[in-house]
Amino acid sequence: MAVAKLLTAFLAVVLSSGGFAGAWDVKPEVDDGMPLIHTLRPLLSTGGLLGQKGLVPCDSWQFAVETNTLRDWKTIPAWCEKYVGNYMMGGHYRRDSAVVVDEAIAYAERFKLSGNGKEVWVFDVDETTLSNLPYYAKHGFGAEPYDWTKFGAYVQEASAPALPESLRLYKRLQSLGIKPVILTGRREDKREATAKNLARQGYTGYEKLLLKPQDVRVNSLEFKSGERKKLQNAGYVIVGNIGDQWTDLFGAPEGARTFKLPDPMYYDG
Amino acid sequence: MAVAKLLTAFLAVVLSSGGFAGAWDVKPEVDDGMPLIHTLRPLLSTGGLLGQKGLVPCDSWQFAVETNTLRDWKTIPAWCEKYVGNYMMGGHYRRDSAVVVDEAIAYAERFKLSGNGKEVWVFDVDETTLSNLPYYAKHGFGAEPYDWTKFGAYVQEASAPALPESLRLYKRLQSLGIKPVILTGRREDKREATAKNLARQGYTGYEKLLLKPQDVRVNSLEFKSGERKKLQNAGYVIVGNIGDQWTDLFGAPEGARTFKLPDPMYYDG
Repeated sequence: MAVAKLLTAFLAVVLSSGGFAGAWDVKPEVDDGMPLIHTLRPLLSTGGLLGQKGLVPCDSWQFAVETNTLRDWKTIPAWCEKYVGNYMMGGHYRRDSAVVVDEAIAYAERFKLSGNGKEVWVFDVDETTLSNLPYYAKHGFGAEPYDWTKFGAYVQEASAPALPESLRLYKRLQSLGIKPVILTGRREDKREATAKNLARQGYTGYEKLLLKPQDVRVNSLEFKSGERKKLQNAGYVIVGNIGDQWTDLFGAPEGARTFKLPDPMYYDG
Repeated sequence: MAVAKLLTAFLAVVLSSGGFAGAWDVKPEVDDGMPLIHTLRPLLSTGGLLGQKGLVPCDSWQFAVETNTLRDWKTIPAWCEKYVGNYMMGGHYRRDSAVVVDEAIAYAERFKLSGNGKEVWVFDVDETTLSNLPYYAKHGFGAEPYDWTKFGAYVQEASAPALPESLRLYKRLQSLGIKPVILTGRREDKREATAKNLARQGYTGYEKLLLKPQDVRVNSLEFKSGERKKLQNAGYVIVGNIGDQWTDLFGAPEGARTFKLPDPMYYDG
C-alpha cells in the first residue's frame, strides 16, 4: 500500500513536469565516459504506450523498423518525435551502437588476414561514419518529411560530427591492417564536402571513397551491392560491412559479416 | 529538490523489493485485451545497465541480437536472465509482436491475388506459430544451454500455446485466400506432435507442413531456403515469410516480404 501511494505520487510529479522518465534512464548514462555527440539537452526515454491509446507504441515501432519489417516509410509517426529524440539524445542510441561496434571489433580481431593487404571493411556515411544528429535535432528527428534542399545544404557545410563508435572501429581496423572503404548513397556532387567532413572528423587513410554517380537512377541496394561486387572482382576481400540501413547490408556480396547500427529517424530504400 | 527526494525514496523502495520496474511498464499493459500467453506472474522490465558496470546492457544486447549482429551465441548473458524474462512475460514481447503482425496484415490486405490459388505465406513454428514460453520460463529464458533431450520431450507433449499474434495473422491470411505453409527446422520424428499441437491451437487448413528430414545434415538457412525454392518451382508465389530467426528469412527466395518476430531467448544458425 505504501509502495502504491508513493508510486502514485511519483507518477503525478513526473507527469506534471511534462515528461516521463523511463526508470532505467534515471542513471546519468551519458556520463559513462562517452562524450555526447551533440550538445542538446539529453532527454530521458518515453514509453510509447503512454496516453497513446490506439496508436502504435514507439518502441515497438522502432523494433519493426530496425528489423526491416516496416519499409518505405517517409516520416516517423508524429507521436514518436519525442520518443525518437530521447532515444537519439539520451544515451540509448550510443550504447546500442557501442554493443554493435564491440562485436565488430571482436570479430575483426579474430579474423585471419592473408598478408596480401586486400582485406577491406565497408562503411556507410550518414548515421554510420558521420552523425547528422545536429541536422535532425532541428527537423523533428525524422518527423518532418525529407527535404533534399535543406539536407543538401547541411551536407555541403561538412560539419557533421563522427559517430564516435564508428570512428573507434575505423581506427582499430586500420591498426589491424584491414582497410576501410567508404561507400555512400551521396552523389558525386557531394564528394568534396564528404571528403572534407570525413577528414575533419579523423577518417583518414581510407582505401576508397565511393559515391553514387550524379545522374544514374539506381536504388541504394542495387548501387551498393554493385560496388561491393566490383570490389570483390578487383581482388578485395570484404571482411565486414557496417551501416544503419538494411539497404547497406543486403544484396550479394554482402561481406563476410554485416553490422547494423540503429537508425529510427529515416528509411533509405 | 522535492522531486529528487521523492525519486530517491521511490527507487529505494522498488530496489529493496528485489525488482526494478521499468516506468513505462507500470501500466498494466497485459490487460489491454490481449490474453497472457502463459500464466506465470508477469514481471516488469529491468534496465540492463543497473548495477552491471562493465557488462553489456541487456537491451542493447537484444538490439544486436534482433538485428543479426550477434550470431552463433549459445546462451543469453547470465546477467540478462531477468531482463529477458521480463521482456517475454511483461507485455513488451507481445506488443512488439503485434506491431509486426499488424504490418503483415496491412501488407497482405493490399496484395493483389492472381485468382489461381497459388499464393502462400510461410510460417516458422517455434516462437512463431507456437510459443515455447512455458518451457523457457522453467529453463532460464535462454540462460541455460540448449538441452535436446528435455526440449524434445516438451515438443512431444504437443502442449505449446499459440503466439496469439501469429494465429491472428494466420486466420486473416486464410480469409484473404493466401494459404499458410508451415516450414520448420523440427525433424520428421516431431511431425505427429507438431501437427497435433498446431491443430489444438487452431492452426488448421494449412497447405503444407514441411519438417527437416531425419538424418540430413543441413543448417536451417540452407534447409529453409531450399524448401522455399521447391515451393516456387512448384508454381507457388511466396507472398510473405514470418519467423523469429534470421535463418527463417535469409536465403533466396526469401518471399516477397519478410517479417521478423522478436526472440531474445536463443539463436538458431
